[in-house]
Amino acid sequence: MFYCPDLANVDIDGVLPLEESRHASSSRRLRVGDVIHVFDGAGCVASATIKDRENKAKLVFTLIERAVYDPPQGRFIVATAIPKGDRQGLLLDMLTQLGVTDIRPIVFTHSTWRQTSCPARWGRIILEASKQCRRPWLPMLHEPTSLDLLANVESQCSDVFVADKDGSESASLSPTEDTMLIVGPEGGIADAELEQLVSAGATMLRVSGNVLRVETAAIAATSVLLSARRNRQEGQS
Amino acid sequence: MFYCPDLANVDIDGVLPLEESRHASSSRRLRVGDVIHVFDGAGCVASATIKDRENKAKLVFTLIERAVYDPPQGRFIVATAIPKGDRQGLLLDMLTQLGVTDIRPIVFTHSTWRQTSCPARWGRIILEASKQCRRPWLPMLHEPTSLDLLANVESQCSDVFVADKDGSESASLSPTEDTMLIVGPEGGIADAELEQLVSAGATMLRVSGNVLRVETAAIAATSVLLSARRNRQEGQS
Repeated sequence: MFYCPDLANVDIDGVLPLEESRHASSSRRLRVGDVIHVFDGAGCVASATIKDRENKAKLVFTLIERAVYDPPQGRFIVATAIPKGDRQGLLLDMLTQLGVTDIRPIVFTHSTWRQTSCPARWGRIILEASKQCRRPWLPMLHEPTSLDLLANVESQCSDVFVADKDGSESASLSPTEDTMLIVGPEGGIADAELEQLVSAGATMLRVSGNVLRVETAAIAATSVLLSARRNRQEGQS
Repeated sequence: MFYCPDLANVDIDGVLPLEESRHASSSRRLRVGDVIHVFDGAGCVASATIKDRENKAKLVFTLIERAVYDPPQGRFIVATAIPKGDRQGLLLDMLTQLGVTDIRPIVFTHSTWRQTSCPARWGRIILEASKQCRRPWLPMLHEPTSLDLLANVESQCSDVFVADKDGSESASLSPTEDTMLIVGPEGGIADAELEQLVSAGATMLRVSGNVLRVETAAIAATSVLLSARRNRQEGQS
C-alpha cells in the first residue's frame, strides 16, 4: 500500500508524494507496468499501474479501479498516558492495527511523558501500521492534552471506560456510539483524577489480575472492548 | 522483585543467584537492612531484609515473611508462530504480563522462524516480565514444536481456538479447564494445517477485521479469551 493524500482528486494519472515515491523506487524495486495499491487514509483505496518511475522522487501511476469506504461507525477513542522509550511506537502501532479511530495522548498528574505536541515520527508509525493492516481510514492522532480538557470529548461519548486493576470484568457497549478508553500512566491515576472520571460517569474496567505496563493495559483493554462491540454488531445484523 | 529459585528451601537466611545479586548491588543500589521482595516463580513469594551485600555476586537476605500461592487454575496455553526481530521479545513480554501459563513456539509450514530450541534470552525476558507484573508463577516456555506434535497437548485441552480473520466473534470458555490459543505465522496457516485443526475440534476466533501482525493477533486474542474466562469465574463465585 502506498499513501497518496490526494487520491480522491486523481482523474487518470496520479503522483505519489516524495517519500512514498522514493520508497517505491528504492526498497520495493517496482517497475513500470507493476500493479500497486494506493490509499488516502480517508476511505479512498485504489489499484493502479506504475506509468513512470524515471524520477525517483515522483512516481506516476495510472488508476485501474478506485473504491470509497465509509468511515467507521462509532468512534473508538483511546485516551492514554504515553509509555517511555520504544514502547511509545509499539503502542501507536498496535492501536492502529486493532482499529481504534482516535488516539489522544493524555498528560496525567503522575505522567513522566509531558510533551505539548506529538513527535512527527508518530504520524509515520501510524501511517505504516495502517498500510500494513490495510485500514482505509487512518486513526486520528490528537495533540497531547490534560484530563481536564478531555472532559469535553468525554461528554460526547456514550461509554467511557478506565482501565483499572480493581474494576469490573464485563463491558457491554453500543456498536455505533462513540466510546472512550482511558489508560493511566505507570505511576497510576491520581485519586483526584479517578474521582473526576467516576463522577463524570466512567466505568472502571478490569483488564488483568496482574500489574500491566501502560501499553499492555491499553492494547488488552482495546482488544476486549472492540471484541464486545463487534459482538453487539453481529447480534444486531 | 528478585528471583531466587531456591526460595522454598530457605530456612532463615538465603542467597540470591549471581545475576540477581549483581543487579541488586549495581543497578538498584540497595543497602544492608533494606527490604526486598523475592520469588521463586513457582508460587513462593517472600519479603526479606538484606543481611550482607559485601560480595556483589552473593547477596544474603534474611526472611521476614513467606507466602505460597496456588498454581493458576486452568492452564492457558498460547501455541504461536514466532514473529521476526524485536517483536519476538515483545510477544513473550506481553503474554507473560497478561498471565498465560504456557508459551509454545510452533513451526508452521509458512513460518520464517524455524529454530529447534528457544534462545536463552527468551527465558530472561519472561523472568523480567514476571517480576514487573508480580506473577508468583512463571509461565512455562516450551521448546519449539511442529503442529503435528502439538496434537497431543491439544487433546488435553477442553477449548482450542485459532486466531483467524474469518472466524466467529464470541468465545465462551470454562474458567478451570485447560485452554489453547493457536496463532499462525505472517504467511498464514496452510490449508492442510487449518483442516487438521478444525477436524480436531478447534474453533476459529475472529480477533479483528484488520490484518494483524502475529504478535498483535496473539496479544489481542489472549486478552479477549482471558477476559471471557474471568467473566465466567466471577459468574461462578
